Amino acid sequence: MTSILQNDLLIRAANGQPTERVPVWLMRQAGRILPEYRAIRAKLSGFKELVETPELACEVTIQPVDILEVDAAIIFSDILVVPEAMGLTYEMIESKGPFFPKTIKNKQDIDDLRIANPHEHLDYVLKAIQLTKKELNNRVPLIGFAGAPWTIFAYMIEGSGSKTFSQAKKFLYTEPVLSHLLLQKITTTTIQYLQAQIVAGADLVQVFDSWAGILSPSQYATFAMPYMQQIADAITTVPLTLFAKGAFFALESFNATNCKIVGLDWNTSPELARQLVPNKVLQGNLDPCVLYGDKSTIKKETENMLQQFGATNYIANLGHGVYPDVNKDNVKYFIEIVKNFKPNNI
Amino acid sequence: MTSILQNDLLIRAANGQPTERVPVWLMRQAGRILPEYRAIRAKLSGFKELVETPELACEVTIQPVDILEVDAAIIFSDILVVPEAMGLTYEMIESKGPFFPKTIKNKQDIDDLRIANPHEHLDYVLKAIQLTKKELNNRVPLIGFAGAPWTIFAYMIEGSGSKTFSQAKKFLYTEPVLSHLLLQKITTTTIQYLQAQIVAGADLVQVFDSWAGILSPSQYATFAMPYMQQIADAITTVPLTLFAKGAFFALESFNATNCKIVGLDWNTSPELARQLVPNKVLQGNLDPCVLYGDKSTIKKETENMLQQFGATNYIANLGHGVYPDVNKDNVKYFIEIVKNFKPNNI
Repeated sequence: MTSILQNDLLIRAANGQPTERVPVWLMRQAGRILPEYRAIRAKLSGFKELVETPELACEVTIQPVDILEVDAAIIFSDILVVPEAMGLTYEMIESKGPFFPKTIKNKQDIDDLRIANPHEHLDYVLKAIQLTKKELNNRVPLIGFAGAPWTIFAYMIEGSGSKTFSQAKKFLYTEPVLSHLLLQKITTTTIQYLQAQIVAGADLVQVFDSWAGILSPSQYATFAMPYMQQIADAITTVPLTLFAKGAFFALESFNATNCKIVGLDWNTSPELARQLVPNKVLQGNLDPCVLYGDKSTIKKETENMLQQFGATNYIANLGHGVYPDVNKDNVKYFIEIVKNFKPNNI
Repeated sequence: MTSILQNDLLIRAANGQPTERVPVWLMRQAGRILPEYRAIRAKLSGFKELVETPELACEVTIQPVDILEVDAAIIFSDILVVPEAMGLTYEMIESKGPFFPKTIKNKQDIDDLRIANPHEHLDYVLKAIQLTKKELNNRVPLIGFAGAPWTIFAYMIEGSGSKTFSQAKKFLYTEPVLSHLLLQKITTTTIQYLQAQIVAGADLVQVFDSWAGILSPSQYATFAMPYMQQIADAITTVPLTLFAKGAFFALESFNATNCKIVGLDWNTSPELARQLVPNKVLQGNLDPCVLYGDKSTIKKETENMLQQFGATNYIANLGHGVYPDVNKDNVKYFIEIVKNFKPNNI
């Protein structure tokens, strides 16, 4: 269906085709940076009501397309819908983050989890995607997403965010067999979920390995990469993006998969990224804190990034989600700079 | 004075000389992993009383030498004594971490800070070092330390620990001139402080850049590295260790300084570290979570690390401070494995 998109810059860039300019969107573009989002959020009982109500999720997904004029929408949801669909409910505690009343401790706990049927247990996300596709009316592509198996595993064991995720890592070291059992169950669910998102209308999908950076390179190779590989092998009908925060050491492995796009955090320089990931379209990686700066800082840092990545095989984004207290006008200015960019050597 | 040390393995390794075995110590070895530490700590009003009382700091510094039989002592203190000596007091809030009631917001705040005189404002640390040297009676070398200028700056602006240190980074982007002014003031204090520690008896000194990993490579090059370089240029009479957590992108720059040792976190593989830092002795980098494992896991992972680094130009350590809830016997077992290690190819 991508052929009828009015703005298909992202799809063409994802497929390595030439584009008249660099496409741009932001991780967490649908969210607290927009007053229009905060107005909707303020009327609700909590974050989960927004995630679980397709009409509302659709509305906030489209807001940044209208207001920020980004080149893609990304469905408003949360990576923790997957553990919930598998049987572990989470709470989103205001200004604290996610909390799981029950966590995974042993084989019985893993056996008790189900491989979620997306049409049964994640239907509200699929409905939100269908509705958003309809409401977007092919203006821009819609991105679907899921958490990476290791990151979902980390929350399931730890039960909340953590600086060290030491419980989750302890489980890897002490229970490697059970760890693989759980990781496989998460992976199977995730693949089915992403495929259902694609059927529902997602034009691209991204996998977020938010806690990749707390693993050692060898742990990542053992407990994370094989499952990323399974996902990359399974998702072949739309462009797939792999993004592992803090895991420069995973970039060469990502280059060897059949994903189309590799996302980058701001710890990796464009030059190093091009060396390590020569086969892929790169996406990123402005430090989100640049958007706290004045206009001249935003212009200088953004143009510097664009110049280093070059105008082809590249999608502009931040290196992480936009911080909620950033001024919306600065976000708009960042997008404007990208849209107006003409590389020196073309 | 190092010539009369009974165990000078660390000094010889630091100077690139051959050693009969790999030396080993642990970051945070003096601390909550030891019941003997917890017994002393329980009698006190708080963490700062321990830091500020030379007799007590000395006692807990020597505990791991007696109990764990490590090859070095590291003075029990905190990197935040430097901002306090410059005029910003901190509180250590139980199970929450450090908190600064007053933070740096503008030029006046920076002008109000003093370049601390270590003999006046940090005398308690120097006394603790003198006392510890005496009590150690040359059994093992004593390591002094300080926070890196960027890390101290980050606390001074942010006022506490943070996942993103977005306030501190915002200050870098919006106030680059003031940032350099403050970083220079911290650096001048830090150099004088480290030099005073050496005069007081420190046989080596280590600089901890705990929050290096939240900067981009170009920000690190602009706001952190020049000050690390100043420290490396100034500290020439004892071996200096530079350790930047999460900053693989700084390793090549560290290789170009005249420090003797480069510390590594567990995100950097031994192989990559030897490539990026060929001129230095390397120190690290076992994932602290390995010590949650059983004995066979600890043996396998530790021997794997030792084999990869090789027995020369190497000091065994963790890739970060030991986690306080790790079983002391596992720490002892890690040390035993290092001490008994015979590389395959020698």
